[in-house]
Amino acid sequence: MIVVVCLNPALDITHHVPAVSWGGVNRPSAVYARPGGKGLNVARTLHALGADVLLMGLAGGPTGAGIEAALDRSGVPAALTPIAADTRRTFTVVDGAAAGGRGDAAAGGRGDAAAGGRGDVTAFNEAGPEVSEREFAEFRGQYEKALAGASAVVLSGSLPTGLPAGAYATLIEVARAACVPAVLDTHGEALLRGAAAGPAIVKPNLDELESLAGRRLSAGDGPDLAAVAAAADQLRAFGAQAVVASLGADGLLAATGDGRWQARPGAPVAGNATGAGDAVAAALAHGLVLGRPWDERLRHAAALGAASVAAPVAGEFSHAHYASALSAVAVHRDEVS
Amino acid sequence: MIVVVCLNPALDITHHVPAVSWGGVNRPSAVYARPGGKGLNVARTLHALGADVLLMGLAGGPTGAGIEAALDRSGVPAALTPIAADTRRTFTVVDGAAAGGRGDAAAGGRGDAAAGGRGDVTAFNEAGPEVSEREFAEFRGQYEKALAGASAVVLSGSLPTGLPAGAYATLIEVARAACVPAVLDTHGEALLRGAAAGPAIVKPNLDELESLAGRRLSAGDGPDLAAVAAAADQLRAFGAQAVVASLGADGLLAATGDGRWQARPGAPVAGNATGAGDAVAAALAHGLVLGRPWDERLRHAAALGAASVAAPVAGEFSHAHYASALSAVAVHRDEVS
Repeated sequence: MIVVVCLNPALDITHHVPAVSWGGVNRPSAVYARPGGKGLNVARTLHALGADVLLMGLAGGPTGAGIEAALDRSGVPAALTPIAADTRRTFTVVDGAAAGGRGDAAAGGRGDAAAGGRGDVTAFNEAGPEVSEREFAEFRGQYEKALAGASAVVLSGSLPTGLPAGAYATLIEVARAACVPAVLDTHGEALLRGAAAGPAIVKPNLDELESLAGRRLSAGDGPDLAAVAAAADQLRAFGAQAVVASLGADGLLAATGDGRWQARPGAPVAGNATGAGDAVAAALAHGLVLGRPWDERLRHAAALGAASVAAPVAGEFSHAHYASALSAVAVHRDEVS
Repeated sequence: MIVVVCLNPALDITHHVPAVSWGGVNRPSAVYARPGGKGLNVARTLHALGADVLLMGLAGGPTGAGIEAALDRSGVPAALTPIAADTRRTFTVVDGAAAGGRGDAAAGGRGDAAAGGRGDVTAFNEAGPEVSEREFAEFRGQYEKALAGASAVVLSGSLPTGLPAGAYATLIEVARAACVPAVLDTHGEALLRGAAAGPAIVKPNLDELESLAGRRLSAGDGPDLAAVAAAADQLRAFGAQAVVASLGADGLLAATGDGRWQARPGAPVAGNATGAGDAVAAALAHGLVLGRPWDERLRHAAALGAASVAAPVAGEFSHAHYASALSAVAVHRDEVS
């Protein structure tokens, strides 16, 4: 069983509005509400891969109850620890008329939080509920019990308000004590402290790696691979056993105990990049428990990331896309080091 | 007991964002979620006036459960009939930097849906859940039972998807059969058909009356009182026993069986106009059950409307404001007819 930890799940609410009146009153033509958060995408992806998965995390209030009900309908096994505060929401507005609409659309840039290609997207992401020490201790107890039957754990996403930046580090130490390898996908201080606790894999994206390194890691249009490799090595030196940087259309760069690797997908895929990193994290955990060597592990991860971009909704992919992407990925070991 | 019917309650979610990035990803600095909908404001106001009130309506899904939990905490007695679909949300973004921000802020106009005066406000209002015939029949049964102990009923707000435009008319007929006078505050066809069912009072605002009349009822800066009176008479002829038009800072104009009345508040009040019409409807129902004559009924309604504008949140008012507004209201019977 793979345990997926999602401490800060969200109810993702999306409003499609034919032509947004900013500063006015809008009546959305379509409303979607589904459970979200990076850990949920990872769990959904592993479930779709046929892996035995258990989603763990924190959920509270009516929003938490809504997430649990939706998870139940989706068939993804979950055991969420109840908290007193209400689980967070994210709210995304898709403006159908944005392409030719407001003059500042270009200046504002495109949020990539949802529904890519459908028009101008604006996201409002709540930070997450207050979690008490007692509630986190309760979660930790349930997590320790679940680890007894686990072959790997994935820790993914942001931490809710009130949890210390070392929360993931604590959970990785608990997993190490139970001899369960951990895959960590988060950002900032939680990533840095988590890496120091010695997880099997950390999976930053380019932004997260740049933010940790404190310097730009791109050159011209794409990532500066030598600089990315140096930053990945730094993060390994910090304690992570392997670092897999996800670089969007440029694929993956991995710094591992078995050397440095690159995996490049085939032709770039148009679609929704939200959740592609979660698909990569899911595939890395899957490859880990299947005992795949690094080249195969990365091939599957890059392919699943590409297949996820082609799917309209984060946390989903088509098996046909995955299969065809798999044959297009080019993996090589980097001899320059 | 006054029964307040709110068939389409909402969870009102408000995000305060220091400087909104339209087309980007925003992290709100403050998040508020409270039960809303016109009927809820009426019930809260009557409860604060010390009236014996029962809020009835429809609630479903996790959002409905959240509304019930919040009502329970607020102490407003409620008996909501469960429905299968999820209760609607409204989502309001308050842009702290709007004053000097986007170039199109002026063109977009200001939504008055929330938090007046706090900056640029954009609202996204969901239409409401599908309600089945069986669910509405279940509600109607509970409503009939509650009417046995009721001295008045207030029917307020929009109808959720799936309910016919004649739903309020049906509920008014049921109330008439039980000899319970009804106050109706809604818009469009539901108002027209409701008025035909013979409620004691209908309370349109200027926009709603203009929309029914199919013509402008204002002249220059304010309402054209002769035109408003003619439109109110028309709505009375349609079946309503009395029509009270709420005209914002211009107060109230009433066409009743006891003649035509005007009630003007004192100096204009700065603040949040959302919910002022609901305060007026609450005061009209309160005056009705207390047996106040029209002049006193309108004096209280105009004063409570003004006190509601001074309060920061819809459905609330300060008793001190109410008392001082009461002495400032000028009521007169219109002899020209």
